[in-house]
Order: sequence, then C-alpha cells, then structure tokens
Amino acid sequence: MGKRRKISEFEIIERYFAPLAAAEPGALGLIDDAAVLALDAGHRMVVTTDTLIAGVHFRPLDAPEDIAAKVLRVNLSDLAAMGAQPISYTLSAALTDAIDEDWLACFSKSLASDQIRYAITLVGGDTVATPGPLSFGVTAFGSVKEGSELRRSSAHPGDSVFVSGTIGDAALGLLALRGELKDLDAASAQFLIDRYLRPQPRIELGHRLIGQIHAAADISDGLVADLDHIAQASGVAVILEASLVPLSSAARTALSGNPALMDTVLSGGDDYELIFTSPPGAASSLALLADETGIALTRVGTVAEGNGTGVRVVDSAGKKKNISEAGYRHF
Amino acid sequence: MGKRRKISEFEIIERYFAPLAAAEPGALGLIDDAAVLALDAGHRMVVTTDTLIAGVHFRPLDAPEDIAAKVLRVNLSDLAAMGAQPISYTLSAALTDAIDEDWLACFSKSLASDQIRYAITLVGGDTVATPGPLSFGVTAFGSVKEGSELRRSSAHPGDSVFVSGTIGDAALGLLALRGELKDLDAASAQFLIDRYLRPQPRIELGHRLIGQIHAAADISDGLVADLDHIAQASGVAVILEASLVPLSSAARTALSGNPALMDTVLSGGDDYELIFTSPPGAASSLALLADETGIALTRVGTVAEGNGTGVRVVDSAGKKKNISEAGYRHF
Repeated sequence: MGKRRKISEFEIIERYFAPLAAAEPGALGLIDDAAVLALDAGHRMVVTTDTLIAGVHFRPLDAPEDIAAKVLRVNLSDLAAMGAQPISYTLSAALTDAIDEDWLACFSKSLASDQIRYAITLVGGDTVATPGPLSFGVTAFGSVKEGSELRRSSAHPGDSVFVSGTIGDAALGLLALRGELKDLDAASAQFLIDRYLRPQPRIELGHRLIGQIHAAADISDGLVADLDHIAQASGVAVILEASLVPLSSAARTALSGNPALMDTVLSGGDDYELIFTSPPGAASSLALLADETGIALTRVGTVAEGNGTGVRVVDSAGKKKNISEAGYRHF
Repeated sequence: MGKRRKISEFEIIERYFAPLAAAEPGALGLIDDAAVLALDAGHRMVVTTDTLIAGVHFRPLDAPEDIAAKVLRVNLSDLAAMGAQPISYTLSAALTDAIDEDWLACFSKSLASDQIRYAITLVGGDTVATPGPLSFGVTAFGSVKEGSELRRSSAHPGDSVFVSGTIGDAALGLLALRGELKDLDAASAQFLIDRYLRPQPRIELGHRLIGQIHAAADISDGLVADLDHIAQASGVAVILEASLVPLSSAARTALSGNPALMDTVLSGGDDYELIFTSPPGAASSLALLADETGIALTRVGTVAEGNGTGVRVVDSAGKKKNISEAGYRHF
C-alpha cells in the first residue's frame, strides 16, 4: 500500500498539518517562524511536553490513527492533571523513509478528529527526516485561572487518596497485544487493548477537581510510581490499599485466571487516569462529581499522619505487600 | 572518560535539568505534570519548536557544549525573527546509551551559561531513552506586544531587502569541518566553524526592528530559501543581487580560492541572521540601528513591483544568475 514518492518537509506541512492550524489565526498558517498565542486576563498558560519514540512508547507498526491519538492525548492528560483547559499544541515529527502519504493522511485525520473532540488546534511544529526511529514530540498548551492549578506537592496528612476510572487496563492490554494473555476471552482482550492504545485524558474531571482536592497527578508511569511522585513532592507517606484499587470487568477476568497479574495492575503505566488526594470532608462532593461526569472515583488509600515519604502498599489486612517493580515499559 | 553507570530518567532530571529551572517558580521544580507560565497584560506568547537530530542537524561527535548551544539558539533565532523577547523553554531529550554523566554535565552547563546570556529559564521537558539517534526538541517561549510581532507575510512591492551580519559563514564552516576547504588558513577556517557550531540569535536586533520594517525571517534553510519563504508568504517577487550579499573576511578568503563557493553562500543554511524587507524611507534609521547594535545591516535586494512570486537572483549587471540548489544539508 502507498507509494513511496518522496515528499518534501514543506509539502508535508502544507498538505497534512497546515489544515489542522487553519482555525487559529495565531498559528499564522504554519508559514511563520513561530506562533502567537493569547491568554485570558487573570489566567496562566499551562505547558507540558512529551516525546514518544517508536519501539519505546509505541509499537512501530501500530496504526497511524492510534499513534496520533496517543501522542496527543498523553500530553492532554498532563494538562488534565493540572486542572487546565486545553487550548492548542505544537507537533514535532521525526519521520523515517517508511512513512508515506497514506500514513500521513491517516495520522493527520486522527489528529483532526481529536482536535474537535478536545476543542484544540495545532499552532506550530516542525517536520524532519530521521534515519529512525519514528518519533513525535508534542508540546500542549492549556489555560488555568491564576493560582488555581492542581499540583503534586500539596498532599496533606489525613487526606484520602482517590483514583478515577479503573486501573491496570493499559498494562494488561499491552500483555494481551503481546499474546501473553492467551486464556482471556476476545472481548475482554479487545477492551484492554483499546485502553492501552487510546488513552482518555480526564480533562473535564481535572478541571472540576479544582478547589475540591489537594494534590493530583495523572497515571502514566504506573499507579505506585505516580502516587510516589505525589508523596515525594509533598513530603508525605501514603498507604495504598491494594484491595481497593478499582478494576474493570475485563481486568478482573484476566486476574481470575492469574492473580499474580495484580503486580502488573499496581506497577503498570499508561492508564492516564487521575490520582489525587482530598481532605476528609470531600467524599460527598466527589460522589456527586462522579455521578455528573460518569467517571468512577474510588478511594484507594490514605496520606499517613507520620514520618517518612513514599508509598506503602498494603493488603486488606493492612499487611505490607511487596510488589515486583520490574519497571513498566510502555512498549 | 566517563563512567557508563546507568542513571535513571528521574536522576537525570533532578541532577542536571531541575537546577536550570530553579529560578522560575512556574516551572514547579520540574516535578509536576506541567509548567505554569504568566504573560504580561497586552502581550502575546510567541511559541516555536525545533527538533535537532544527531546525523541530520548536528554531528554525533560534536561537543555537548556546542550541541546544547545549537539546540537552544536555533529556537531563540525563531523568536528573534518574530521580534519577541525570550522568556523560557522546554527541553525534550532522547538519549542513547552512549550519553554518560560527563556528557550531561557539559551539556547542562552550556545551557546554564546560555540561560544567563539570554535571560531565560528551563520550565519543563522530558527525558527518554532511545535506541538512537540522539535528539533534542526545544519549545521556546517569548513575549511580544499584542499586534507588533514581525511576520513573513507582510513584504510590500518597493521594499528593500536587508540582511544582518554576514552570509554563508556557517555553510562554509561545515565544509571546513569536513576538510573540504584545505587551502584555507587556519584562522579563517576556525572563524567559519565557530559560526556553524555557535549561532548568534539576533534577539535584540529583531526586537528593535518592530515598527521599522515590513516582513522578517531568520536564515536557517539558506539565504535564497528563506527569502523565498518571505516571497511566497507575501505573494511578491524579490530580486536578490548576489554581489551585494555581505561576506565575512574569512568567507572572502575562501571564495578567492574557489569562486564557485558563492553558490554555497547563497543556498547554504544555518547562519541564523535575520532577513527582512523595509519601506524605502527606513534606510537611515536602519543605519542608526546598525551603529547602535554593532550588527551590520546590508541591503541585498528589492521587492519587485510586478507579477509572480519567488526569488530571482541576479549578478551585478542585473543578469539572472542560476545557482545550483543542491539542497543544503545541516550536516
């Protein structure tokens, strides 16, 4: 499929990326040296950047539509973790010879679809040829009212720890893609694989958590690792109760065949759910927020009233649980 | 030199990059999901991004100090071309196994030095392991008064075309590095090599050109190519007089041995000078600006009063000059 006609960097930008910037005057049609962005009075610009590399963060033969969604959404998830409303993004594409126009058409169509979904536009970027591997860097911009952004460093002793959605699906999905969950039914496997390939950044939820919670992060490196980031940044110790971690029906099915996969659930990454700590009195307003957004919010632990920093994982009897931290690989 | 001890992504950020973000509270110590940037009232945020890849944009064995300077400064040059004052930047580093702590120490020390030089701070980024090649993506942020930014699309028929500094040094420097200028004296070769390795973004000049000129760009792809970007964006035809193009003493020495190198001067990139068009009456104020900044501003052509778009290169007799556009490669 697809001719390998050589297309120049300028043609690629004109044909596939400039249309993604057409709605934003500040993008200057991608023909200028830089973009010019405005910011509402009393607001701050929230900026995050993530580079994804074939063979490290995605599989080289993943569909271009899925790669585009992942590259963009992992950055939007960082904005969600700050409570910011996404505005725009830049894209740096390092393309190998294997990338043809069919591939670029699918990739840019997927970006166009996500631009509508998340009300954002492309405002800049560059396209370069690389001997490999294929890689993409996105810098995403969001807006937040001055002083209201969510941070990792503000967990308080006595806080409850909550997560959104279900945990571990993406890491199990990656195992399914690798053919390591052979006994799992096809529908469950497909659900988990979709969760791995198509993150759902919790933007609306993050924004509505402003003022209700203390500290927040998104779960990209893994539940325990990202909770540890909050613990270290806040200088607190956190107890994570493994038995409280919310699982999807598909994940429960996978674990029923192999309970040892619970370590994968706890240490695997790529879920792009939110993890946050909230004061004791927030439970009822969080329950209401879960109802209104349709996203489950589940208490999974407590910020300890004591010394030390870090995460202690315990079982339902309160006994310390050692989990194998083999180190999650995104791919 | 240099132990190859494996250092984690988090250790790299903590040890080498977080100190570069210490002066900017909005960087949140690089421990959060994103940075939070402010913008002065009545101003716009100018955003540019460029990725540089070993073997494409720099030579894999270039000194880490030089790679750091280039990665940062090519982005600052884009801000200069918009007339923006630099504020901050994010850095995405894709590091190979060959990068050890000595290398990172030199690289970050060079960034620290440029942060002082250009009054900017690091505000975010990510560090990932790659099977190769080494690559860096910078997104740079600047500030410009609303509506005052310089653009490529505003050249008018009758404008004069000016360039800053001297042209072709970087492309000749690359030839010198490759050993292709064997007859050139060592001092001239070193001057040209420095111009290739260490761009000098024209930030002060760009800022002071606001209100005085019509269209501007920086020269990264080459004199003719970047002038063509202005011509295409503005929908005008431009006459470039090759004999007016300002040359450094070192470049003149190189050309005296091989006049055919003039094509390299005209089509070579990486000079990071500014090229701009100005109304006929601006010559004396530009002469004053050149005096005050110590940067030569030389008239090299005219925006034509006629049909068509693009660049026509002519010799001193006004006769069309064909230049071999072999396509400049940054490395």
